[in-house]
Amino acid sequence: MIVSPQSMSFSEPLALQSGASIRDYALAFETCGTLNAGRSNAVLICHALNASHHVAGSYAGRPDSQGWWDTMIGPGKPVDTDRFFVIGVNNLGSCFGSTGPMHINPDTGQVYGADFPVVTVEDWVDAQARLLDRLEIGTLAAVMGGSLGGMQALSWTLQYPQRVRHGVVIASAPNLTAENIAFNEVARRAIVTDPDFHGGNFYQHAVVPKRGLRIARMIGHITYLSDDVMNEKFGRRLRSAATGAGDAPDGTDLRYTTQDVEFQIESYLRYQGDKFSEYFDANTYLLITRALDYFDPALRYGGDLSKALARATAAFLLVSFSTDWRFAPRRSRELVKALLDNRRGVSYAEIDAPHGHDAFLLEDERYLGVVRAYFERIAKEAAS
Amino acid sequence: MIVSPQSMSFSEPLALQSGASIRDYALAFETCGTLNAGRSNAVLICHALNASHHVAGSYAGRPDSQGWWDTMIGPGKPVDTDRFFVIGVNNLGSCFGSTGPMHINPDTGQVYGADFPVVTVEDWVDAQARLLDRLEIGTLAAVMGGSLGGMQALSWTLQYPQRVRHGVVIASAPNLTAENIAFNEVARRAIVTDPDFHGGNFYQHAVVPKRGLRIARMIGHITYLSDDVMNEKFGRRLRSAATGAGDAPDGTDLRYTTQDVEFQIESYLRYQGDKFSEYFDANTYLLITRALDYFDPALRYGGDLSKALARATAAFLLVSFSTDWRFAPRRSRELVKALLDNRRGVSYAEIDAPHGHDAFLLEDERYLGVVRAYFERIAKEAAS
Repeated sequence: MIVSPQSMSFSEPLALQSGASIRDYALAFETCGTLNAGRSNAVLICHALNASHHVAGSYAGRPDSQGWWDTMIGPGKPVDTDRFFVIGVNNLGSCFGSTGPMHINPDTGQVYGADFPVVTVEDWVDAQARLLDRLEIGTLAAVMGGSLGGMQALSWTLQYPQRVRHGVVIASAPNLTAENIAFNEVARRAIVTDPDFHGGNFYQHAVVPKRGLRIARMIGHITYLSDDVMNEKFGRRLRSAATGAGDAPDGTDLRYTTQDVEFQIESYLRYQGDKFSEYFDANTYLLITRALDYFDPALRYGGDLSKALARATAAFLLVSFSTDWRFAPRRSRELVKALLDNRRGVSYAEIDAPHGHDAFLLEDERYLGVVRAYFERIAKEAAS
Repeated sequence: MIVSPQSMSFSEPLALQSGASIRDYALAFETCGTLNAGRSNAVLICHALNASHHVAGSYAGRPDSQGWWDTMIGPGKPVDTDRFFVIGVNNLGSCFGSTGPMHINPDTGQVYGADFPVVTVEDWVDAQARLLDRLEIGTLAAVMGGSLGGMQALSWTLQYPQRVRHGVVIASAPNLTAENIAFNEVARRAIVTDPDFHGGNFYQHAVVPKRGLRIARMIGHITYLSDDVMNEKFGRRLRSAATGAGDAPDGTDLRYTTQDVEFQIESYLRYQGDKFSEYFDANTYLLITRALDYFDPALRYGGDLSKALARATAAFLLVSFSTDWRFAPRRSRELVKALLDNRRGVSYAEIDAPHGHDAFLLEDERYLGVVRAYFERIAKEAAS
């Protein structure tokens, strides 16, 4: 399936939750499949930290450019683009096409940098709703996302209940725990205290705070994986054993070094960190992790999640993964309970998978089967 | 109880596991209690990452200077200094008194810096054994430690089985998992890539890689605590609510900032990181985390822990804590199983405590009770 990125410009200001507003911004998006005559088969996909509007398919002439959820979305896939019109949209503040910190602030004529306004999950949903207005899509058959994308899907059902028939919330949570905020904060501090960050205005200095981005990504990788899968993939194996530089089984090929790579897990993390620091924007990292921290729909209901979710009228599919310790199954169960308290239709699957939080992006037959069955139900409902 | 630090110098070279050796080094140590006539009531305490020889009591005129295990050790305490002669020793490579990276290398006349040799748990135990030789203590009533200190206690029973009657191994593991190595590696990268690290030779530049040390400590704190205790202590509470700058319950006192402190957990972590960066040596951090990574007594037995522990002749007390995800109870159970495979005497307690890995340093009646009962048994045995 070949897809092409598109862009939509918005001149009128978007009021943000912080009280600030943003104007003259663009949203990058992609679509696959065909919108039906009744305009009733649209599915919006919301992305998480390190993803974009490029959800599925690949770009012409670039067969390796598959979208980040290509296992999930496409012709004949669980979210079947032969039946559904799928929209991927890149969020405000991202570094993958929509207006973000590296773009020009129309109020100053300068690059936004650290002055890009703080955006929240709710702001992203508002921006996405405007895009749908332009596309003349009144009601979504479904809104779907994993992790931070799941928070957006949930928020859609609260901010625009009349516009969403189904919310598909995967590996997500009603808010972050203190531990999750803590990991985000360490990653942010690594970026902000990198001398190349220059208070967020590093573009003018023609440098990139790569040290900080590397550390942030390494922390991310540890928390996306489970202890089990790390032990299986890397265990305590030495890098020298992998490269063939040495393979003495009695540990005599230890190199006794504090700064060089000794274990395979170290090599993997450094590689992931280096790669990420080449393409990800540091200000975007701060913005997106802050949106994660802030999301908490129950806050203005005194922490009562059941009250907070009373506004939702959609039906829901929730999925969690047994070894996901960053967005643990118990957090999804909190959502299930709050929805059931409101007598909403809820399907919930807890998938026994070894891959931790990453599982939501991976191929797992039971997981994909659950989503496939749910979307078949949505398709039947739309046809009836 | 008033204690005083002492120092013992060693001129003869100590051969290290890496093949290197170190000479003209000093070990800082402290003792409390009285060595009995039979020299049979000595208990050696091994320390973990951020601790020292100052295990209990306080320094004259400084009532706030309690040792790091003062809840555990002292007159009438679980490790009763009215009965036992307790020795705390600071490890080689530390920054709290024993010879370390900030001292002069006798071979070059320069500060060691990054050239301080890589030391392992086994090397520390060898150095401790030499100290005991000088103190004319042939056999220890017990060797005891938590976390990395527990690894040393275990290693004592393997390297000097005839010199240890009891091994007390708390919140420890037979080796680190890939996830633990990964956290250590991120912390090390934060330090090494700090421009003020200067390849480990920052002393000559009169700077300290504080940015890296802060990040390292923040990561450490997250992993020492449990998700539960973090949620209880900090939850999603805002800093403004704590300072009284605002207390609107509906979240309208959010400040919408990516670089400033918003949540209490952030404030806590920054404080801990700042404090640590004021006193801890960066090269020591690298050395100690590497010693953790390398420890793996089963390695030269093809990963067979039961075979590896066959050398031990001591009796053992092992303790783990239910919410410790860094040195999880299942890791202690691996040790228990391997010791039982060898028909060793083993007492094991799994304490249901909310505090994560930190629990081994905290006051918990059941935990302290278990240790007290075990040391009463040791005392009776010594008397009979």
